Amino acid sequence: MLPELPLPAPLDLPGASVTLRRAVPGDLDALVGLLSDDPISASRGDVASDADLPAYSRALASVLAADGNDLLVAEDDAVVGTMQLTRIPGMARIGASRLLVEAVRVRSDRRSSGIGGAMMRWVQRDATSALGTGLVQLTSDAARVDAHRFYRRLGFVGSHVGFKYRTD
Amino acid sequence: MLPELPLPAPLDLPGASVTLRRAVPGDLDALVGLLSDDPISASRGDVASDADLPAYSRALASVLAADGNDLLVAEDDAVVGTMQLTRIPGMARIGASRLLVEAVRVRSDRRSSGIGGAMMRWVQRDATSALGTGLVQLTSDAARVDAHRFYRRLGFVGSHVGFKYRTD
Repeated sequence: MLPELPLPAPLDLPGASVTLRRAVPGDLDALVGLLSDDPISASRGDVASDADLPAYSRALASVLAADGNDLLVAEDDAVVGTMQLTRIPGMARIGASRLLVEAVRVRSDRRSSGIGGAMMRWVQRDATSALGTGLVQLTSDAARVDAHRFYRRLGFVGSHVGFKYRTD
Repeated sequence: MLPELPLPAPLDLPGASVTLRRAVPGDLDALVGLLSDDPISASRGDVASDADLPAYSRALASVLAADGNDLLVAEDDAVVGTMQLTRIPGMARIGASRLLVEAVRVRSDRRSSGIGGAMMRWVQRDATSALGTGLVQLTSDAARVDAHRFYRRLGFVGSHVGFKYRTD
């Protein structure tokens, strides 16, 4: 958990009422649904199979219990978005801590309605301020060209190449 | 700290005797030297100024104290390399934990001698096995074309764009 995060928080979305809060175990089905509701995630095995629920349940508990990590959901009448935050202390940049954002998802029928942008603006302003992290970083699959435009509009700079290595 | 890491460990470097171990506070000067001994880091402010030593010292203590994080050094007669490891639990990929590698540096007069490759092979094999992390990820500045070749040779896939946002 990142107890310093000012949660729950209303998202800055004119004309809508969406709240950002910490995920709880009861969000499991909604979170697995958000993951599988995405062709790239589905291609990596996240297809919301019942057989995988115990693994997802253990993962959710691990994220919520891990120091320096938090899992958030955006909610109005139901869960419509999620993201994971990780604070990483480090030596570089004169000892700056960074905030890593992973697994940003918005429910497919609610995309392009400003929810994702409001979530990221909250990270860039409120979360960094509460956590003292001068740098926000994330990687986005090279195939997600719409997401790249989205992050650039929010002021992110695509200055790096993100490398992955799978052990299996 | 990541207490599961099998450290200290001899690096797999034929004809040389380099050991990988956890950093200690007494490594501060060597670590700051490695950071400044790199033009891209220096351009971000890591120039080993005496005025910055207290901030680096606090950062080193923070990394060593943070659950899920560890800072390693490679050493023979002196410290010749460093890297930071962060274990990140997550929901995606059916609840896979990932291992993030940050701040990989080898002393400039020892580059191209195999030290960096041996460090990364240890991460890919020994660290992932001890930590149960099926995915290793890192980002590399787009300007570091030699580093990209290096990671590709080790089996990493440059499938993502790495975005950064600075709050200041």
